[in-house]
Amino acid sequence: MSNSKTIAVDGMGGDEGPSAIVPGLAIALERQPDLKFLLFGDEKQIDPILEQHPKLKAATIVRHTDIAISMDEKPSAALRRGRHGASMWLAIQAVKSGEASVIVSAGNSGALMVMAKIVLRSMPGVPRPAMAAIWPTTRGQSIVLDVGANIGAVATHLLGFAVMGEAMARSVFGLKRPTVGLLNVGVEEAKGLEEVKEAARLIRESNLPIEYGGFVEGTDIGKGTVDVVVTEGFTGNIALKTAEGTANQFGAFLKQALSSTLMSKLGYFFARAAFQAVREKLDPNNNNGAVLLGLNGIVVKSHGGANAQGFASAVSLASHMAGNRLIERIAGDIEKMQLLQKEEK
Amino acid sequence: MSNSKTIAVDGMGGDEGPSAIVPGLAIALERQPDLKFLLFGDEKQIDPILEQHPKLKAATIVRHTDIAISMDEKPSAALRRGRHGASMWLAIQAVKSGEASVIVSAGNSGALMVMAKIVLRSMPGVPRPAMAAIWPTTRGQSIVLDVGANIGAVATHLLGFAVMGEAMARSVFGLKRPTVGLLNVGVEEAKGLEEVKEAARLIRESNLPIEYGGFVEGTDIGKGTVDVVVTEGFTGNIALKTAEGTANQFGAFLKQALSSTLMSKLGYFFARAAFQAVREKLDPNNNNGAVLLGLNGIVVKSHGGANAQGFASAVSLASHMAGNRLIERIAGDIEKMQLLQKEEK
Repeated sequence: MSNSKTIAVDGMGGDEGPSAIVPGLAIALERQPDLKFLLFGDEKQIDPILEQHPKLKAATIVRHTDIAISMDEKPSAALRRGRHGASMWLAIQAVKSGEASVIVSAGNSGALMVMAKIVLRSMPGVPRPAMAAIWPTTRGQSIVLDVGANIGAVATHLLGFAVMGEAMARSVFGLKRPTVGLLNVGVEEAKGLEEVKEAARLIRESNLPIEYGGFVEGTDIGKGTVDVVVTEGFTGNIALKTAEGTANQFGAFLKQALSSTLMSKLGYFFARAAFQAVREKLDPNNNNGAVLLGLNGIVVKSHGGANAQGFASAVSLASHMAGNRLIERIAGDIEKMQLLQKEEK
Repeated sequence: MSNSKTIAVDGMGGDEGPSAIVPGLAIALERQPDLKFLLFGDEKQIDPILEQHPKLKAATIVRHTDIAISMDEKPSAALRRGRHGASMWLAIQAVKSGEASVIVSAGNSGALMVMAKIVLRSMPGVPRPAMAAIWPTTRGQSIVLDVGANIGAVATHLLGFAVMGEAMARSVFGLKRPTVGLLNVGVEEAKGLEEVKEAARLIRESNLPIEYGGFVEGTDIGKGTVDVVVTEGFTGNIALKTAEGTANQFGAFLKQALSSTLMSKLGYFFARAAFQAVREKLDPNNNNGAVLLGLNGIVVKSHGGANAQGFASAVSLASHMAGNRLIERIAGDIEKMQLLQKEEK
């Protein structure tokens, strides 16, 4: 039995390691005082920081290990070195054993995916696990998947992503009937990749309770045209990082323009609260946490560059999904999908 | 012999048709008084607007046709109806016949690509034509291709895109040794799609005078890490439109935040020139014009929603490329590519 209030944490991941993670856990605990943490990593680094947060210390069990996966280690090398011993591996293992309901890591994405797949394995019937990102939109937030767990996808993989993304949108956003769209180069039925067109047919003909919103284009992601955007992992990763780059670029242009004249500096002075609000809305630290879906356990990947605030967002997201029984929802939906596919045959 | 100062114009394309196009030509002519235009379309709509621009009228020959391709017409239907008669078709034909050096249209992209391929045909040795977009970056501008002329690409197609994009960067940006990168999900050699890894090998081993910058990620596009970003058309189109959506979103957030309090409104008042500068920098009308490369003639696609200013940008880009003999540059580079490939065998 998993304890839905206990979160396993890879204490050594991310650019700043325990010095961002431990204060991040303290912030998450402030928000949700009933959380418990199983924290894996080097106690020599963790304990001194933990001492500064007595409430957190009381809610946390530290499990020591000397092995930490570095951010630039190749997944294959990470696996050889870290299998059975690294903080990341042990944290995932805690979900498998049922000690924790969900694992959060800010570490090496590739290593995390490989280890998670080995330890937790795919849920029965899931064609492929997928990495889902929460994307801020003008309407609120959407889920985009796959953003890089796989390279390449056939139509049945995309159907699986749609089912898992829809379950996540119900769980995370509390929507009854989230809308699901397929990312394509045009909204007309005849356009785009064969796999995407075939996936559209599968979704329409599946009779699954999916509110299918048709094809969507790149511009629709930021608009929030649909709640769940389904795409293959290569394209999804490029889209996610292109959006990140564009937001940075916009910020850089604005900064430059606002410091160019006395008038604009004065303007910035008066409007700084507004700029702060926009920055926060687009700050990856406030929209932090991609989720690896389709395994027998929830794996949340925090941005490697996340600060304490950012890591706390990822932890809150993780606890939210665990509390909403995301795994059970996905299992139910995947079962429906399989039954319908069998009927078709 | 093509007249490098004469530009063929599809007078009926775009959301606003002649009422944006004709004033757009007038603006382009102000900037470059030696341009001449061959303008195809409905003279009943064109002539009254042309009357308001006497200088433009003197530099323009209007060729009447009743047939105009609509923005939402399927390419196959557009071809059936417009072959040999539509303003778009006739404007392309003027490049083929040598009356004009380049064609500009704000019309239906799909129809334009199909017609251009039929009329102008691929240059000898070009594996596939590609649509290249000019992308504003924090460093200046880059070229991204293919943004949607093709769906799917093998390694040799990507090599061809690299060669054509590099020639365009020399022509449009005046760079001697533009850098070229391949869009991928990571910068490590082992990552990504097989086609992309194979294209990297082809570029490295080709001995072509390409300044190869390795793999780049989505975030690198906006940074301007390389001058030319090469990718397959589906992904390129999604990236382009995702960036457009993100920029719109950023603008919407900012607008909302700046009108939220009295202080922020005051700030906007003082800094409005700065906001205007950012808006102009990111305005698609000021970075307007995607270019279809690899045909026996240059085809410039203006954004369908471009206003007069936007259409003028596309015309200036077109005349610039014609003046810099882009076609000859590409032909030379493609020939080198073929010779090297033969040597390899």
